[in-house]
Amino acid sequence: MRIIAEKINGTRKAVAKAIAERDAAFIQNLAQKQAAAGATWMDVNAGTHPDREPEDLLWLIDLVQGVTDVPICLDSANPAALRAVLPAVKKTPMINSISGEPERLTGILPIVAEHGCDVIALCMDDKGIPATAEARLEVIRRVFVETRKAGVPDEKVTVDPLAMTIGTNIQAGQIIFATMRAIRAEFPKAHIGCGLSNVSFGLPIRALINRTFLVLALDAGMDTAIIDPNDRDLQAAIYAGELVLGRDKHCLRYTRAFRAGLLEAPKAPAPATK
Amino acid sequence: MRIIAEKINGTRKAVAKAIAERDAAFIQNLAQKQAAAGATWMDVNAGTHPDREPEDLLWLIDLVQGVTDVPICLDSANPAALRAVLPAVKKTPMINSISGEPERLTGILPIVAEHGCDVIALCMDDKGIPATAEARLEVIRRVFVETRKAGVPDEKVTVDPLAMTIGTNIQAGQIIFATMRAIRAEFPKAHIGCGLSNVSFGLPIRALINRTFLVLALDAGMDTAIIDPNDRDLQAAIYAGELVLGRDKHCLRYTRAFRAGLLEAPKAPAPATK
Repeated sequence: MRIIAEKINGTRKAVAKAIAERDAAFIQNLAQKQAAAGATWMDVNAGTHPDREPEDLLWLIDLVQGVTDVPICLDSANPAALRAVLPAVKKTPMINSISGEPERLTGILPIVAEHGCDVIALCMDDKGIPATAEARLEVIRRVFVETRKAGVPDEKVTVDPLAMTIGTNIQAGQIIFATMRAIRAEFPKAHIGCGLSNVSFGLPIRALINRTFLVLALDAGMDTAIIDPNDRDLQAAIYAGELVLGRDKHCLRYTRAFRAGLLEAPKAPAPATK
Repeated sequence: MRIIAEKINGTRKAVAKAIAERDAAFIQNLAQKQAAAGATWMDVNAGTHPDREPEDLLWLIDLVQGVTDVPICLDSANPAALRAVLPAVKKTPMINSISGEPERLTGILPIVAEHGCDVIALCMDDKGIPATAEARLEVIRRVFVETRKAGVPDEKVTVDPLAMTIGTNIQAGQIIFATMRAIRAEFPKAHIGCGLSNVSFGLPIRALINRTFLVLALDAGMDTAIIDPNDRDLQAAIYAGELVLGRDKHCLRYTRAFRAGLLEAPKAPAPATK
């Protein structure tokens, strides 16, 4: 499982505050913790201030690269910001994201192609997120026409089918799993990635829903999780899912994770002695 | 989800002891707790003493029926024992089990047909448990030829594909899921049931493996779980699995289970006050 570590995201309140206050220690702590927990890429998102985005993004990138060599996933829809920061990025980054929206294809795809980046491709276009698996596949087919035309190999593309909220549409899970299976069948070299936070929105015991969704998504073809790698519950679900699905030869990764203490919730600290 | 409550089983040490000592309270407590937790059937197995089986089974049945009207699942491979106890069983029971073994088909299937029982059909024959999904399907096809010939409708048959130990065969999960999908496709009216205890044998954090297997089995077509209905972790996995798979309209069962406190581990008792 490839993991895109999601915590350094300026749309999150604590990160927005750290960016505004130039709290380097806060950002570097997030980077170190996510790297130690097994991030494959470190998503870096400077938030929603287009005017400050290049500068903020550059500040974040320098901080992250100062404490870890995990490659960066540049999370921006702004071609100018991407072009501005790319010279500072040490390892070829992933770019998050393109989609079927024309301005993303004209603005961002050339950058991806030029720099040989991996890229996340969202199953949506300028009309929004299609309701059905078939319509999402239509969108992503058009995206692959463009990525191939641009010379980006399918294996550099991670399709995100865009998981929606089950609480408002009970079919949301099935739509995603069907989309994943169709993508896996039609674009076997492409990767499939997915975030989880929308899925359980508004429902109780979200961790239970998220880990259940994750296991079913693994079976449907997901190979890239956009998560907090320090979420023990999700990591345990990945280890167990790969084991039960027969993808963990001799149960080695599972038993290693067990010995590293990764499969159980951390024990509560012992009560202080007098 | 239909639940066959598995705890009253004489091959378990505590139950064997209770049977030997005629500890009625122990058995009735198990029956009440499993009924309260939502058992659809109450499995009753008198253990491995053929000579005492009819008498022990009758004792168990009377106890169970004394405290609950949940129908019984008669767990015995002994036609004489089944015939001896059937007159004492108040509601039409399920019978556990037939298989492709000739003596089960000649000895037990006629009892099933005669009494209009539901029946569990194991994917094995006199040569043992086949290694592949295709070979298990071959066995179960022959079983359906016999059940149909005997006049037992497919919807009374619950096929158990017989989950094996992942620790000794990493493909064990995939074999079961493939078998379930094939059965669902070829015998759409039949039910699919499965026990979980073998799956995680010999591996650490068995509960994690069991609940992961259960969610994937739900997706593969399992509609009948042979479990301890008081296992909160498995029940929570069922509620979440049915939710994520789009089988819980308006999320009603999930949110009801949440309000009933069924989705989280029971809280530790509050410390005693002075």
